[in-house]
Amino acid sequence: MSARIELITTGTELLLGFTLNTHLNYIAQKLATIGLRLDRHTTVGDDPAELRAAIAEALARCRVLLATGGLGPTADDCTREVVAELLGRPLARDETIADAIRERFRRRGIAMPESVLRQALVPAGAQALPNPHGTAPGLAIEHENKLIVLLPGPPRELKPMFEQYVLPVLEQNFAPADRPVCRVFKVVGLAESVVEERIGAAPGVELGFCARMGEVEVRILGKNLAEAERKIRAALGPHIFGEGDDRLEEVVVKQLAAAGKTVAVAESCTGGLIAHRLTNVSGASRVFLAGYVTYSNESKVELLGVRPETLARHGAVSEEVCRAMAEACRRRSGADFALATTGIAGPTGGTPEKPVGLVYIGLATPTRTEVQRHLLLFDRETFKFFASQYALDALRRELLKSHRPA
Amino acid sequence: MSARIELITTGTELLLGFTLNTHLNYIAQKLATIGLRLDRHTTVGDDPAELRAAIAEALARCRVLLATGGLGPTADDCTREVVAELLGRPLARDETIADAIRERFRRRGIAMPESVLRQALVPAGAQALPNPHGTAPGLAIEHENKLIVLLPGPPRELKPMFEQYVLPVLEQNFAPADRPVCRVFKVVGLAESVVEERIGAAPGVELGFCARMGEVEVRILGKNLAEAERKIRAALGPHIFGEGDDRLEEVVVKQLAAAGKTVAVAESCTGGLIAHRLTNVSGASRVFLAGYVTYSNESKVELLGVRPETLARHGAVSEEVCRAMAEACRRRSGADFALATTGIAGPTGGTPEKPVGLVYIGLATPTRTEVQRHLLLFDRETFKFFASQYALDALRRELLKSHRPA
Repeated sequence: MSARIELITTGTELLLGFTLNTHLNYIAQKLATIGLRLDRHTTVGDDPAELRAAIAEALARCRVLLATGGLGPTADDCTREVVAELLGRPLARDETIADAIRERFRRRGIAMPESVLRQALVPAGAQALPNPHGTAPGLAIEHENKLIVLLPGPPRELKPMFEQYVLPVLEQNFAPADRPVCRVFKVVGLAESVVEERIGAAPGVELGFCARMGEVEVRILGKNLAEAERKIRAALGPHIFGEGDDRLEEVVVKQLAAAGKTVAVAESCTGGLIAHRLTNVSGASRVFLAGYVTYSNESKVELLGVRPETLARHGAVSEEVCRAMAEACRRRSGADFALATTGIAGPTGGTPEKPVGLVYIGLATPTRTEVQRHLLLFDRETFKFFASQYALDALRRELLKSHRPA
Repeated sequence: MSARIELITTGTELLLGFTLNTHLNYIAQKLATIGLRLDRHTTVGDDPAELRAAIAEALARCRVLLATGGLGPTADDCTREVVAELLGRPLARDETIADAIRERFRRRGIAMPESVLRQALVPAGAQALPNPHGTAPGLAIEHENKLIVLLPGPPRELKPMFEQYVLPVLEQNFAPADRPVCRVFKVVGLAESVVEERIGAAPGVELGFCARMGEVEVRILGKNLAEAERKIRAALGPHIFGEGDDRLEEVVVKQLAAAGKTVAVAESCTGGLIAHRLTNVSGASRVFLAGYVTYSNESKVELLGVRPETLARHGAVSEEVCRAMAEACRRRSGADFALATTGIAGPTGGTPEKPVGLVYIGLATPTRTEVQRHLLLFDRETFKFFASQYALDALRRELLKSHRPA
C-alpha cells in the first residue's frame, strides 16, 4: 500500500471555464514515472473558506498533499495564508526571498509594488522552494506526519519546481521499491465491450479500458506484465496497432516507408481527412502521393474518371462507385495502394435504402480491390473520423500481411 | 446566493495522466451562459469506495451534483451501482433502454456482448437521459432535495446530452433572475496583444482575452453590453468573423451558400485540412466541389497541370507555383473560387532561402488571383492549421467585399 497522495488546484478561472486545468494531467504523468499515483484531485476557486475546507478534508485523508495556485501577489491569492492559519503556523517574512523578489524587479527595470513582498511570507517551519521563473516561491511543510507542498499556478513556474524539488523528495520517501510498470495497447476495429470480453481476466495486473474516437486503449499496470501482455496479444491479435501515444496514421506511414511503398486517397465523405491525417506525420511526403477530394458527382467523373453510368445506376454511395474510385485513384496517381471513401455523413441526405451513416471504404492493391460496408451512427465529424480510421486500418492490415517486418 | 453546484469527474485514466480532463472546462463554460458557476470539482479513479466517499461528501455540501464517467459497459465502470447503493435505490433494467442498445448493435451489424446491457440498469425513480451518440444513457435523480445527474464520460456523448437535457433544467430551476450576460467575439488575423491594445478600456464590463489556435476570443461580461460591443466592433472591424462557438469554416460555407457560389481547393502543405474543415460543415456539398491534395511535385503536374518548368525554375514552394495551383484548381473544378497552399510544414525540408514555416496562400476569383506569403513558426500540425486559417480568411474577406448581405 503506497502513501495516499491528493492534489488540490485552485483558481476561480478554472471553475469559470476560462482556463483549461492541465496541472492534474502533468502531475499525474510525473508521479507515474516514479510508481506513484494520485488518489484524488479537487479544484476550488479563490475563496478562502472553500479552500480551507478542501485542504482540511484532504489532510484528514492523505499522507501527501500537493496544492497549486494562489501564491501570487494579488488580492485573490490566499493559499499561503489559509494553510498557515489552518496549521497554526504564523507567517514571517523570509528576507532571502524578499531580496530575490526585489532583485528580479530591479533586473527587469520595473517599479515593484509593495504588495509583491507578500510572496516572501513563509509559515513557521516551512521550507521555501526557489522559483527561478517567477516571484512566488513554493513551500514545503512537514506537519503531523503529513507532507504539504504548495506550488505556483503558472505551468512554466510549476513544472521546473515540481521536477527539481518535489519529485526527488517524493521518490526518496514514497516511491515503492518494487514499483509497478504501466503499458497501454491501442486497439482498432473492436468495440470496448468486445475488447474486454476477449481479454477476460488478467491475474496479477490492474486492467483498464478507455474508449477513444475509433479506437480503444487497454491499460495494464503491475509488477510483471509479461503474462498479461501475452494474453492480450493472443486475444486481440492484429487489432492491436500500437502502444502508448502511437497514432494509426503514424503506424501506416512507417509501414509504407519500411516497405518502400506509396499511397494515394480518393475521398468523398471523409472530405480530405485521410489526407490530412497522413500529412500530419512528419515524413509523409515519402509515401503519400496525392489526394482527390471528390465531393460532388461531377468531380468523381472529372478527377477520377468514374463513369456517369455507374453513378446513375448505383448512386454515388455504393460499392461499385467506391471500387471505381479506389482503382482510378491508384491508376491515376501511380501509387502502390489507394484508399477510397463514399458515404452519407449526415445529418441530412439519407434515404430508407441509404441511411445517414452508411459508408463504403475501398482499398486497391497491386493485385485486388476490396470494399467494406459500414453503418456509422455518429455525428458528422465522428462519422468522418471513424470512416478514416477504418480506411487507414484496412491499409495497415494489408501491409501487415504483405510486408511483415523481417 | 445561488444553489451550490459541484462536479465529480471519474476515471483512473484521469488520475494516471493518460487523459486530459476537459469536462470541467466545458461544463463550467456552459453553466456560465446561464449565470451559474461550479463551487467545487473533484476527480476520483474507478474505485468504488473512493467514488462513494466523494459522492457522499459532495451531497452533504451541495444542491446539485453533476458526475461524469463510469456509466460504460466494462467492469471498471461503477458510478451507476455506487450511486444506487448510496441512495438506497435498487437498480432495475429499463427495457426501452435495453432495446435501444440492442437496436444500435443490430443496425451496425456487430455482435452484442451481454455485458453491454448493464447500461440499461436504472436506479428506482431515476429519469434516463437519452444518448443518441452512444449506448449509456445519462441518469437524473431527485433525492432528498438534491438533484444528481450522471453523465457519460466520452465528450461527444456528454456534450449533446448536457445541452439538451441538463442545461435547460438547471436554467429553469437555478439560474439567477438578474444574470450578467456574456458574449464572445471571435477574431482572426490579429495577435492577442494587438487585439487588447486596439480595444483599450471597456468601462462597465469585465473584459477577457483568450488566444486560441489561429484566432483570438474577446469575452465581455456584464449587465449591459451594448456600449462595449460598439467599441469592440469599431476597433476590430472585419477581423471579427463570428461570435460564441462560430467556426471560420462555417462562416465561409454560409457566405458561399448565401452568394450562390462554389469553391475548390488545391492543397500541398495543408494536406487536405482545408477540404476537411469545409466538409465538417453540414451542407458543404452545396458549395464545395472538389479538393486536390497535390503533395508530390508529380501530382502538381498530373492533377493540376502545373508546368514542370515552373516547378523547376521557382521550386514547389513559390508564389508562381501557388498562383498556378489556384488558377488551375478553379479552371479544372469549375468552381467560382479556388484556394491553394504550398509551404514547408517541417520539421525537416527547410533551406536558408526557404525556411521551415514558409507558406504561400493563393486565392483565385473570377477576376484575379492574389497570393499571400507568411512565415508560420510552429510545430507541423499548428502550421497546417494556421495556413488553413489564412486561406479560409482570404476567401471570407473576398466574399465580404463582393457579396455583402443585402
